[in-house]
Amino acid sequence: MARNLAHKLIASHLVEGEMSVGEPIGLSIEQTLTQDATGTLVMQELESLQLDQARTECSVQYVDHNLLQADERNAEDHEYLRTACQRYGIWFSKPGNGVSHPTHMQRFGIPGKAMVGSDSHTCAAGSLGMLAIGVGGLEVALAIAGEPLRIRMPQIWGVRLTGELPEWVSAKDVILEMLRRHGVSGGVNRIIEYHGPGLADLSAMDRHVIANMGAELGATTTVFPADDAVRGFLRAEGREHDFEEWQADPEAEYDVTDEIDLSALEPLIAKPSAPDKVVPVREVAGEPIGQAVIGSSANPGLRDFAIAAAMVHDRHSAHTVSFDVNPTSREILSDLTKMGATFDLIAAGARIHQSGCMGCIGMGQAPASGTNSLRTFPRNFPGRSGTPEDSVWLCSPETATASALTGVITDPRESDRAYPKPDLPAQASINTAMLVPPEAAERARQIEPVKGSNISALPELDPLPTRIEAPVLLKTGDDVSTDEISPAGARALPYRSNIPKLAEFSFTRLDQHYPQRAREPHVVVGGENYGQGSSREHAAIAPRYLGLRVVIAKSFARIHWQNLANFGIVALTFADPADYDAIERDDVLVLENLPEALRSGTELDVRDETRGFRFRARHALSNDQVESVVAGGVIPRLAAERASSQR
Amino acid sequence: MARNLAHKLIASHLVEGEMSVGEPIGLSIEQTLTQDATGTLVMQELESLQLDQARTECSVQYVDHNLLQADERNAEDHEYLRTACQRYGIWFSKPGNGVSHPTHMQRFGIPGKAMVGSDSHTCAAGSLGMLAIGVGGLEVALAIAGEPLRIRMPQIWGVRLTGELPEWVSAKDVILEMLRRHGVSGGVNRIIEYHGPGLADLSAMDRHVIANMGAELGATTTVFPADDAVRGFLRAEGREHDFEEWQADPEAEYDVTDEIDLSALEPLIAKPSAPDKVVPVREVAGEPIGQAVIGSSANPGLRDFAIAAAMVHDRHSAHTVSFDVNPTSREILSDLTKMGATFDLIAAGARIHQSGCMGCIGMGQAPASGTNSLRTFPRNFPGRSGTPEDSVWLCSPETATASALTGVITDPRESDRAYPKPDLPAQASINTAMLVPPEAAERARQIEPVKGSNISALPELDPLPTRIEAPVLLKTGDDVSTDEISPAGARALPYRSNIPKLAEFSFTRLDQHYPQRAREPHVVVGGENYGQGSSREHAAIAPRYLGLRVVIAKSFARIHWQNLANFGIVALTFADPADYDAIERDDVLVLENLPEALRSGTELDVRDETRGFRFRARHALSNDQVESVVAGGVIPRLAAERASSQR
Repeated sequence: MARNLAHKLIASHLVEGEMSVGEPIGLSIEQTLTQDATGTLVMQELESLQLDQARTECSVQYVDHNLLQADERNAEDHEYLRTACQRYGIWFSKPGNGVSHPTHMQRFGIPGKAMVGSDSHTCAAGSLGMLAIGVGGLEVALAIAGEPLRIRMPQIWGVRLTGELPEWVSAKDVILEMLRRHGVSGGVNRIIEYHGPGLADLSAMDRHVIANMGAELGATTTVFPADDAVRGFLRAEGREHDFEEWQADPEAEYDVTDEIDLSALEPLIAKPSAPDKVVPVREVAGEPIGQAVIGSSANPGLRDFAIAAAMVHDRHSAHTVSFDVNPTSREILSDLTKMGATFDLIAAGARIHQSGCMGCIGMGQAPASGTNSLRTFPRNFPGRSGTPEDSVWLCSPETATASALTGVITDPRESDRAYPKPDLPAQASINTAMLVPPEAAERARQIEPVKGSNISALPELDPLPTRIEAPVLLKTGDDVSTDEISPAGARALPYRSNIPKLAEFSFTRLDQHYPQRAREPHVVVGGENYGQGSSREHAAIAPRYLGLRVVIAKSFARIHWQNLANFGIVALTFADPADYDAIERDDVLVLENLPEALRSGTELDVRDETRGFRFRARHALSNDQVESVVAGGVIPRLAAERASSQR
Repeated sequence: MARNLAHKLIASHLVEGEMSVGEPIGLSIEQTLTQDATGTLVMQELESLQLDQARTECSVQYVDHNLLQADERNAEDHEYLRTACQRYGIWFSKPGNGVSHPTHMQRFGIPGKAMVGSDSHTCAAGSLGMLAIGVGGLEVALAIAGEPLRIRMPQIWGVRLTGELPEWVSAKDVILEMLRRHGVSGGVNRIIEYHGPGLADLSAMDRHVIANMGAELGATTTVFPADDAVRGFLRAEGREHDFEEWQADPEAEYDVTDEIDLSALEPLIAKPSAPDKVVPVREVAGEPIGQAVIGSSANPGLRDFAIAAAMVHDRHSAHTVSFDVNPTSREILSDLTKMGATFDLIAAGARIHQSGCMGCIGMGQAPASGTNSLRTFPRNFPGRSGTPEDSVWLCSPETATASALTGVITDPRESDRAYPKPDLPAQASINTAMLVPPEAAERARQIEPVKGSNISALPELDPLPTRIEAPVLLKTGDDVSTDEISPAGARALPYRSNIPKLAEFSFTRLDQHYPQRAREPHVVVGGENYGQGSSREHAAIAPRYLGLRVVIAKSFARIHWQNLANFGIVALTFADPADYDAIERDDVLVLENLPEALRSGTELDVRDETRGFRFRARHALSNDQVESVVAGGVIPRLAAERASSQR
């Protein structure tokens, strides 16, 4: 049978299970990626796992989220990460070196390799023909320790691209079209594989844009072939030796299919405050804006900034607009500078920020309340910008720049200039000054990671009780994101290495009193796609620290579901979604005979004590996962195993 | 008599009084400078003063302090400032355009003009031969409204410069030598005038470095002649038409004199945590560092960055060091970029930040606790970096860069390279894209300043009671800075337009419970040089809001003393400094017959009720200031005058 690329990549890494949709499989992992907002916990987990040295081919810790350093906490996290990397044999990318995804693509990504990353946009590396999956930090820690990644075999969704993008339309509009068609849960339990003649029009960095925001569709990952575009990219990065061709067979088959005619696309924009509220730019043109931001891992390419620079050459941003430019890596800033594009941007009134995630994660450049902010970012969940009453739109660099010049939302096709075709350098400004290589193992073992006062230990996790009788402290709607469960932003992010403090922010976007109310065992009831968005395992650990033991939802986003299992929270779905409507906040639910009920089948009985009815709920845990949940989480389970093997 | 330059500048602006040291004088003011951390109050004051349009030749509002935008508050302040500027006929320099002092020098400064600014480093414009004085916001508001500046005639301190700076020694070392010799109150009630053959070795921007940090000596201001160096600077800025020669007469006389042989200087550094703890770099060489920062208004020149870039060319900063570069204006970043210096800095591992004050005011890039941070900044007061237990050193760009390369404090003369002599462009990259000009008066009157939810009104100030019987809530040591009275930093600064919220931070560096304890009328007792540092009038208004009515100190820093008078707080000095020792915290002090006691003389009687003794205290208020204090502050006094003139 003609095989698609995703199947080939999975088959080449399969160490457990069968490749049938929905079946558990285990995949060997060659590379890992961590960033600072999730990486401090990963390092603490490596310590809990008593790791000696990383067993992957290449593990890299980036510092791109917490760069504001409003007090000592960020800098102390950076120092902890640097020294922990030295201890465990991990590359360290210094603060300001660049956003993890484009930097990894430039310096470390290799076609055909499998990678896990504790960042939901890890899938961006699919642009190189990698199998790159965003997971919780603990699974990254396990991968660093040499464990396979365990998931359920996803469907493969072949999206055929035809035609060529019109002028003023670019890769961002392709992924916005996918979101317009399929919504934020359209990709759940699927790998998206792009193929077809339209690929010829997309550079490796264009593909990064599309692969990156596959996360917004809820997809397991996205893959593109490793073809001449990838070879050319690696050549420009001085790494052609890392190229290997990876392609689908001709006439490959897919579990699901779709097709996009690139030539039929127009500039699109996601309205506040969801990535799938997509409309043509022309429909909202004329709305005044207060900010336009170019940057983030969703539009990280040299092209994205060079287009903006060419558009503003000899012009300047409107007086009412803050025009923020956030080069995604130092390499790109270097190239822009060589090209003269940095000068054009500065002259046009751009604020040039250090390379990092910045406002994409609410770390700076927050807009005024209710002021429209156009961003080339991947997400616009409510309040994620740092401004509770924000009004963030997602669009291409072309649309953001055109709007920065006029001060109102502007279809870039209205420009009186020709569509710029910037001349990109054949050779990138390769620079490794901010990459600290791993220490040799012998020296590494002498190194003690430096723990500042803000670095807590992982909390102790007790085993699952036999009986849970606990109130429903929250009942949420659909599409609750991990930003709502454990917010990012400048106030909370400095506590990512300090669970007791971080826990005080849990669910506060939905109910500011939740942390006070949540001191005893309790339940949360959710709607569809519960836990979408960022991969942060803090969204499991922090509520668990406050007593969360059970989440019952209509459906779960993949990474968060896995994080719940990893930290001993029972994740259940309603057998009959109508039961969701029957439960109210503060109802007391009872689950009996718990370990056995989880072990003996996939359905169990829940009693609503307050209203006096029973309903059925399902779990999708593997046997391994059941044992982790019973033990209180993966870490206590592994500790128990180690203890019993030592006896 | 041969006149010095300071006398000429004062004489040409004298509208009230006699130029005898210590006598009250009034000076006409042509220009004003405000920045965002003080400017929001200035705009509220203009509203309280019912101003129609600015009466100065040129008033400019800069946004350089609050650029992090961790939530909506900074952006809402910016929008308030932009629209208030439009209302009152004031230039608006957008966030990211640059730090006020170098930007003002580049675009607006004119030799021979008088300027007041609500920033203590306003004196930097003395580099152009201006009479530029840092004052409280209210005095800037009054100047905008056309009022003269009222001060007491200072002494003129002639500092003769001879010789030429050795290689690796630069302007920063000159001002550090002044601080080493004279300490942080050495310049109180003095204008420092530099003269002599050594001037030929100092560019206008070098002089900016020296004039800027005259604030650290406590000086009223610093002046340099407007000579060929200034003409050349203005020519490069496309403003030679603004040049006018201003020089001291040959053989001019001074009230006080000093002399520095530039050729005898060596690289100097101020140790933590005071600008006058100055030692030769060689004495502390070898101390490990975690951060080196190039930037701020104390080393804002193109040369300062170009030297750093040349030093790191083809090298990179140590892996243990965060090398932060903060170009002080977009013009300088543009020039650096044209020269290729930006590229060298990026390649060496520098984090390039948006143009602004950044860590100098605790808005970002805070170091880890106890980690040595070398900065080219003007101040290193404890905790000002944002890290309570910080360890900040002040030095030249040469010393900071040499240390960034090695990872330890390094005397730059140890370099194995020749001292770089960067080729600076003859013509600066003039750029006004981020300067919003004032509106025409007729349109301006239609504009309503946009007040976000964080913009409070000025608090109401009640008149001085006849009798004060109140406890001493705090007794401080010497050299308490306004940073300790009303902290800056990322937590407090967003409330600079919101006095009730800001008040909660008052004195918390000295006593975290002060805001809770301070709900009733009370007294603070201080040591020498009370209120040094930043010009922020918040250090008067916020404690006043909490009930502070009297400060009795050994001596006061000039700007803070004036701010106390402006906001109706009685500032007294001990007639006998020994009485300071006799008073303890919580003692109840009694001042009787208050308005009359202030009006009838310069000494009054204070009774320590708790310990049963009396002492004499002095005030230095002019008759006008007495009336302001009696009315509760300048604003209620002016309101009462308006009301009575309307009757």
